[in-house]
Amino acid sequence: MNNNENIQAEKVTTPSPRGGKGVGAVDSYPFYVEPFHVDMTGRMFLGILGNHLLNAAGRHSQRRGWGIGALNETRHTWVLSRLSIEFEEMPRQYESGTIETWVESVIKLFTNRSFAILREDGSAYGYARSIWAMIDMETRRPCDLLSLYDGDILRYVVPEDEKACPIAGHGRFRFRDPQLVRTIDTHYSDVDINGHINSIKYIEHILDLFPAERFRDQRLSRFEIAYKNESYLGDRLSFYVQETDEDETDVEVRKNETEVVCQAKVKFK
Amino acid sequence: MNNNENIQAEKVTTPSPRGGKGVGAVDSYPFYVEPFHVDMTGRMFLGILGNHLLNAAGRHSQRRGWGIGALNETRHTWVLSRLSIEFEEMPRQYESGTIETWVESVIKLFTNRSFAILREDGSAYGYARSIWAMIDMETRRPCDLLSLYDGDILRYVVPEDEKACPIAGHGRFRFRDPQLVRTIDTHYSDVDINGHINSIKYIEHILDLFPAERFRDQRLSRFEIAYKNESYLGDRLSFYVQETDEDETDVEVRKNETEVVCQAKVKFK
Repeated sequence: MNNNENIQAEKVTTPSPRGGKGVGAVDSYPFYVEPFHVDMTGRMFLGILGNHLLNAAGRHSQRRGWGIGALNETRHTWVLSRLSIEFEEMPRQYESGTIETWVESVIKLFTNRSFAILREDGSAYGYARSIWAMIDMETRRPCDLLSLYDGDILRYVVPEDEKACPIAGHGRFRFRDPQLVRTIDTHYSDVDINGHINSIKYIEHILDLFPAERFRDQRLSRFEIAYKNESYLGDRLSFYVQETDEDETDVEVRKNETEVVCQAKVKFK
Repeated sequence: MNNNENIQAEKVTTPSPRGGKGVGAVDSYPFYVEPFHVDMTGRMFLGILGNHLLNAAGRHSQRRGWGIGALNETRHTWVLSRLSIEFEEMPRQYESGTIETWVESVIKLFTNRSFAILREDGSAYGYARSIWAMIDMETRRPCDLLSLYDGDILRYVVPEDEKACPIAGHGRFRFRDPQLVRTIDTHYSDVDINGHINSIKYIEHILDLFPAERFRDQRLSRFEIAYKNESYLGDRLSFYVQETDEDETDVEVRKNETEVVCQAKVKFK
């Protein structure tokens, strides 16, 4: 699991009260595709989209009194475990859209949070799913979300029959004999405020394993990542690759040759 | 010179008319410091700030009928040649501020554009200067800005005695015997919509040459970059470093070992 302590909330001097009035269950956040945020094909980089998703998650939690500002009172923090994004089309340079996010379910130690990435006309560029745990910052162990704040989080769950996230769930990884294709050192710009290699940077480094032609001749249609362990400034990251079929590649990132940091599945169409 | 064809404007279906009414000479653009946009010390990455500056420049040009949308009519485009940023303090996570930008002077083939990076209370985090040329997209040669559109650009010049940018001008580079410290391959996420290594990525790669301690124990106080030539996906970039004094380092980036791509001066305090 990857510790995203810093990304789950706006800093607030007075955290929103839990159970605050007038807060619905689904939030919408606008985005705009800036020129430096698009790739050679004019489509938004996936890392930029990932950043928007994580910001939306943070703001949604914060508004409901479940953000970092509030959680620090009780020394808990959110940790991102899985993120799967699937799209029909990536937003293009100068386009605007909105990201909707909501909590789909809570299963004791985990929340399933979903996202819709919408065009201005309300149609979907794509969707995303994510899994988060809340950990105790001292013990680093996950908390029972249903007992924390007397199960307040259940107030915000939007069941799947009310609002659907129509993409497949997170897949499984079965690495047999993946091939080492690249090893990189980590540097200053890889690291977040907690001293961890930041979750978005892994996405960038993983996509950098693919040749330009994949992005030009095909399109990235689905990306999944499972965060397993933290890595830190100075760690050497090794990228192991295994093609599961012609258009699907699994990637395992290990630090210092041994420990698995994260695993990803990349599909082109 | 670095071709930033893509960053100088919003896409507009109806470009602002040149000499449009109600358009002053200084624009302000808000910014907010997102969690993934800060470094290990909690301060905004310089590349993120650079992106905001270039976006502000693009919008300012666009509003005055000098953006890309408008310029494409006449097959001209803006190219960034120099960027120097100096600050007392970098914005921190969750802070908001504004970027002011204006044209300080126009000298036939170049415009000098300045920036103020302001806190919410109006005091300055820092300032920046930049130099831009306009090139003919077919000949790739710079244009005489004073004759283009009958010198319309002069309407937007704010002389230094009206609005000052109180930081030193762009410095000179004198490389004697710089040492090669790193060579990198360029990948998918380095490249912009024009197929060039993007101007912001150079800033990231240059700062990645410095150890974490420099950012922790000191602070980045000034950064200058001179864009000399384009590099492209697949080019190998070599970084040559020369300490000019204890706190100032010059960096030269060469592609494929020979051609100079850009030069930078990095000061810590």
